[in-house]
Amino acid sequence: MTQQQEVTIVRYEVCDIRFPTSKHLDGSDAMNKDPDYSAAYIIFYTNDPTLEGHGMTFTCGRGTEVCCSAIEALAVKFINTPLSTLTADMRKTHQICTGDSQLRWIGPEKGAIHLATGAVINAIWDLWAKHEKKPVWKLIVDMTPEEFVACVDFKYITDALTPQEALEILKANQATKAQREVEMRENGYPAYTTSAGWLGKETVIDRDKSGRLTHHGSLFFMHTGYSDDKVRRLCREAKAQGFTYFKQKVGGDKASDIRRAALIREEIGADGVLMMDANQIWDVQEAIDWMQDLLPFKPLFIEEPTSPDDVLGHATIRQALHPHTKVATGEHIQNRIIFKQLFQAKAIDYCQIDSCRVAGVNEIMAILLMAKKFDIPVVPHAGGVGLCEYVQHLSLIDYICVSATIEDRVLEYVDHLHEHFEYPVVIKHGSYVAPLDPGYSITMKRQSIDDYSFPNGRIHKTN
Amino acid sequence: MTQQQEVTIVRYEVCDIRFPTSKHLDGSDAMNKDPDYSAAYIIFYTNDPTLEGHGMTFTCGRGTEVCCSAIEALAVKFINTPLSTLTADMRKTHQICTGDSQLRWIGPEKGAIHLATGAVINAIWDLWAKHEKKPVWKLIVDMTPEEFVACVDFKYITDALTPQEALEILKANQATKAQREVEMRENGYPAYTTSAGWLGKETVIDRDKSGRLTHHGSLFFMHTGYSDDKVRRLCREAKAQGFTYFKQKVGGDKASDIRRAALIREEIGADGVLMMDANQIWDVQEAIDWMQDLLPFKPLFIEEPTSPDDVLGHATIRQALHPHTKVATGEHIQNRIIFKQLFQAKAIDYCQIDSCRVAGVNEIMAILLMAKKFDIPVVPHAGGVGLCEYVQHLSLIDYICVSATIEDRVLEYVDHLHEHFEYPVVIKHGSYVAPLDPGYSITMKRQSIDDYSFPNGRIHKTN
Repeated sequence: MTQQQEVTIVRYEVCDIRFPTSKHLDGSDAMNKDPDYSAAYIIFYTNDPTLEGHGMTFTCGRGTEVCCSAIEALAVKFINTPLSTLTADMRKTHQICTGDSQLRWIGPEKGAIHLATGAVINAIWDLWAKHEKKPVWKLIVDMTPEEFVACVDFKYITDALTPQEALEILKANQATKAQREVEMRENGYPAYTTSAGWLGKETVIDRDKSGRLTHHGSLFFMHTGYSDDKVRRLCREAKAQGFTYFKQKVGGDKASDIRRAALIREEIGADGVLMMDANQIWDVQEAIDWMQDLLPFKPLFIEEPTSPDDVLGHATIRQALHPHTKVATGEHIQNRIIFKQLFQAKAIDYCQIDSCRVAGVNEIMAILLMAKKFDIPVVPHAGGVGLCEYVQHLSLIDYICVSATIEDRVLEYVDHLHEHFEYPVVIKHGSYVAPLDPGYSITMKRQSIDDYSFPNGRIHKTN
Repeated sequence: MTQQQEVTIVRYEVCDIRFPTSKHLDGSDAMNKDPDYSAAYIIFYTNDPTLEGHGMTFTCGRGTEVCCSAIEALAVKFINTPLSTLTADMRKTHQICTGDSQLRWIGPEKGAIHLATGAVINAIWDLWAKHEKKPVWKLIVDMTPEEFVACVDFKYITDALTPQEALEILKANQATKAQREVEMRENGYPAYTTSAGWLGKETVIDRDKSGRLTHHGSLFFMHTGYSDDKVRRLCREAKAQGFTYFKQKVGGDKASDIRRAALIREEIGADGVLMMDANQIWDVQEAIDWMQDLLPFKPLFIEEPTSPDDVLGHATIRQALHPHTKVATGEHIQNRIIFKQLFQAKAIDYCQIDSCRVAGVNEIMAILLMAKKFDIPVVPHAGGVGLCEYVQHLSLIDYICVSATIEDRVLEYVDHLHEHFEYPVVIKHGSYVAPLDPGYSITMKRQSIDDYSFPNGRIHKTN
């Protein structure tokens, strides 16, 4: 590329990358028995050999090839497009993916084609940020309120949030933005560590001089399949390590759930925070009845009590359990339109966005703004592969530009598969260190891409 | 296969079949500009060379390959499975597709993977019905209420309809079922013909001795792109031919919509039925404001006023426009859980199910039952390719077993692409003749499959 030439996308590569995690995990719950944490991954190559845009959507093994097929269908639209054309109107760039008149039929804005949109749009943000030599969060934080709003597709959400209201939210935070950026650069964004009992290993993130964990908070997952003795022992060990948040998987057998909730509460004490996660196992009335019996153990919230599509169901459940426990959901919520309704119907207390189930950065910006208007804390879904790398940017954007608070926010951290990324997340003193490398932190090492490519990578060949 | 051997699925074939209809259509609306009516098609082969199961999901061209990839991911699960194992528990067979712990991530129960489930499940019903030497509608009509209910997955809908309530609906109709079956065999199911102005051709279905059309009702589409003179001329011609239902595409330009609605109403008179279709073009308040200005022309309903994901939005629109016009939607509604909420929230007046967007026959059975309970007429979406062949079975099942009425029902018929099917729909005296050939009427001619296979079929090579 000569200096006169504009940066232009010239080709792309789509990779089906699967980590055989089901071989090592105990498995977590009835719905997600044996995930092989995977990525439908795209690289946009440009006429500048030093500049690439990387993006991925998270998947669970089988079905990654379906998302890869959907990514191909979208990526081809961007060939021979100058980057400046795409970045001049990011709302329109987003709509190139969501508005294809033929592809729209297989969504619209949901399922495989929308997961693929997440990968493609995020890759364009990664490319833009790398070109600007900034991390994605900083690229967005540096936008004026008008520029921020211009990235958002307000289609189908204006009954909940108008562009004018969005502008007012952002403008109100403008004067104090720099101060929050400094704070984040100095202290990072508080992390809650997920040490998963079912991972079968102890996860140690960061200790102070005395050897104690220095998490702001920490979260300990309990697999439903463990014996009472094992749960008790794991609770004690986790508590001794400084863990203060405990998440119990529920929904298998009610008597067991009650017995186990009692013993966890006994072990963690009145101060320990107990969360419950049902992974969509219940129907609406079943969720209410089951949770009634678990309320004595004072869970902070019940996560995914029923189908992610059931706005009214979540509202009914929340109403029945309020104020004894809260309702959280989001990792399976398909798009901004369902989030809008969850907010409108007062159906949830925590908004657990997934960075690549919805259509990438632009749609996340819409959801952050709606959550702010409806005063619901955004607690991104992390874990899997690549999700921690993505969400650190989103929480920084949320705090610096939109919500302007970290109260009641939980940014999950799972110590898993980070070694495959060029710029993995860094946790220090219990916080995510604000990433400073250009891009969206999602660039995977070439060796990892090659080794874990399915079905022909080294790992899959030799296993 | 020897006589002792059970019928068993031994292999499958997945075909990407595309009809280049965008070359011949004027195009219908802003959202679906240039559909290439397509099918992601599957054939299950058995150990009996005379017995195959065929199924498809309808698509619009690009993206068919994504659905084909999803069909592959599901179809492989059925290899070496005896048919009797699948038919012994059709609820479980349905759940084999919807419950895969890894594939579930790329849905759940929505988008490409759910469209694929529709194709696969329908192919199994086709196989079963062919083995029983019955059409699919008759296979189901012959079920006891208990057997019917056993096909339905009630997961996530029991707050709207319990298995017991479903049983009661079916039992109440049991005594008069045979009588309705006789009626359908004699008279067929009333068809409303869609002659599409934008197809650029006159569609003549059936005339009586005097040469007049004998439709029970008929529907004439008006493309937004036509001049006022052309619309006026088309209205006169259609009315002279006996058309009584007219559908106006709206949402492009409000002044044009108003002017055109006025002249259509003038041409069709007070007795002509005017429907309006917005193809999801509006936000919620926009839909209300726009329709307020069209109410003077007395539209029967507004179809797809906003996003198919927006249950609360549809409810708001319906409430604002009630009782001056009605609200219809369905062809883009992803699954029974969204339909449930549309019913619960009193958000729609007509339920326009799509036979292969939801997960095939089983999920349709669930929706028919819920619609009956909430007293909402089911008006299947037809047209495209293969949809008329499918929906004739569904309306027969609805009438004979579930709703027990044809009042306010409209079974659309479009005279398009039927020549590619082995057992195409037959219209006689303005009604769908009850199909008697074994199976689900969806078996495509081998020559058509080969000619229209994308990208290597004869049609695509030579064009």
